[in-house]
Amino acid sequence: MTRWKCTISYDGTQFSGYQVQPNKRTVQQEIETALQKMHKGKQMRITASGRTDAGVHAAGQVIHFDSPLSIPEDNWQRALNTLVPSDIHIKTVERVSDDFHARFDVKKKEYRYRILHRPERDLFRRLYTYHVPVPLDISVMQKAAKYILGTHDFTSFCASGTQVKDKVRTVFDVQIHVEDDEICIHMIGNGFLYQMVRIAVGNLLTVGRGEAEPEEIKSILEARDRRQAYATAPAQGLYLWQVGY
Amino acid sequence: MTRWKCTISYDGTQFSGYQVQPNKRTVQQEIETALQKMHKGKQMRITASGRTDAGVHAAGQVIHFDSPLSIPEDNWQRALNTLVPSDIHIKTVERVSDDFHARFDVKKKEYRYRILHRPERDLFRRLYTYHVPVPLDISVMQKAAKYILGTHDFTSFCASGTQVKDKVRTVFDVQIHVEDDEICIHMIGNGFLYQMVRIAVGNLLTVGRGEAEPEEIKSILEARDRRQAYATAPAQGLYLWQVGY
Repeated sequence: MTRWKCTISYDGTQFSGYQVQPNKRTVQQEIETALQKMHKGKQMRITASGRTDAGVHAAGQVIHFDSPLSIPEDNWQRALNTLVPSDIHIKTVERVSDDFHARFDVKKKEYRYRILHRPERDLFRRLYTYHVPVPLDISVMQKAAKYILGTHDFTSFCASGTQVKDKVRTVFDVQIHVEDDEICIHMIGNGFLYQMVRIAVGNLLTVGRGEAEPEEIKSILEARDRRQAYATAPAQGLYLWQVGY
Repeated sequence: MTRWKCTISYDGTQFSGYQVQPNKRTVQQEIETALQKMHKGKQMRITASGRTDAGVHAAGQVIHFDSPLSIPEDNWQRALNTLVPSDIHIKTVERVSDDFHARFDVKKKEYRYRILHRPERDLFRRLYTYHVPVPLDISVMQKAAKYILGTHDFTSFCASGTQVKDKVRTVFDVQIHVEDDEICIHMIGNGFLYQMVRIAVGNLLTVGRGEAEPEEIKSILEARDRRQAYATAPAQGLYLWQVGY
């Protein structure tokens, strides 16, 4: 048996998220089905760095799996790309040691959130950005972002329905870039709670619209209460950008 | 009765083209259904500047229709945008004189064709560009484009299955722009035959890959024979950009 690590991207639009669910189209199930075809119908299991929700995209999700097949890395990539649907792309395949684990070994993750910031809609980006047609003050958003940096109990930025008990995470970096009519929010951390990035972005946008002071982010986090935080930004702007090991 | 002119955009991905066809999802049928809801179930007909094929997008298609309703322009736009699906957007609505005709009055049309030119695929642009992963010589493509300019019988650039007898059209401008990893081909003319832009682009790309000389475009057009021309570029890169009256 050899362990293989793959970096994959997917367009989340047509998926009910990453993780297998009965009677739903998921990324995990599509890749496992492709691997099963390569293994004479044998059931295959893959392990990802973590889940992504319905509609969320990935530019650099990482998975691992074990296989008895001895195939060169490039051929793995070609074969898998032939077998997966057009909204999944296998970017790289590399042989790793048997103790590599796509989830347990994560050192950091980067998410990016794309906002289309202009009055007019853009049909051709509607599945890949969140359209915000109102004025936003980027400098106060950047000020608010500083309160997210560092190690905090992020209970206020965690959607209900999660099993996770320890809600302390460390955010290494938050950057807000403007390019043409798009605003891109980059967040890098050692891990993220359920919908944490989307809640963070929703709160930064509330500040940007002038409906909250930047300092309020501090008190929202200190409250450790999801009900204190503002709305969650929608899924289609979010990308799992890369995973570091 | 008042005549209304609308500029609309649509994402062609999920449509079987513009024109109504039985049991198919089309742009025309979606807009007529929306108008019908505004007219107490009365059947409504719209007229466009011309058809677009399955998968082809529009940034500035123009339609007209007649209505007995007296509604301000902005309210028409808001009402229609509420009623059409998310892959159609009504950009403007304006009152026009009764003799305006969206098809007969066309003076010029601009099409654009987006090519993703890099080795790697990009999942997030797969529905909106044509991915060409091989080297292209832009300067010879620009040289070849000059042979398309002007008034010609474009039979060689017209897909079979068309009823049109007069295949003489005038192309006013062809431009090839490179921006980052995209090549955008702009074509402006007084009218375009069935699949003419996609065949023109397919032929320019054949030249760009070094598989034909730029001068060959001239002899292909002179042959007035579709079989002399090279392959048609796929639908998803093409946009009806604007229509001039």
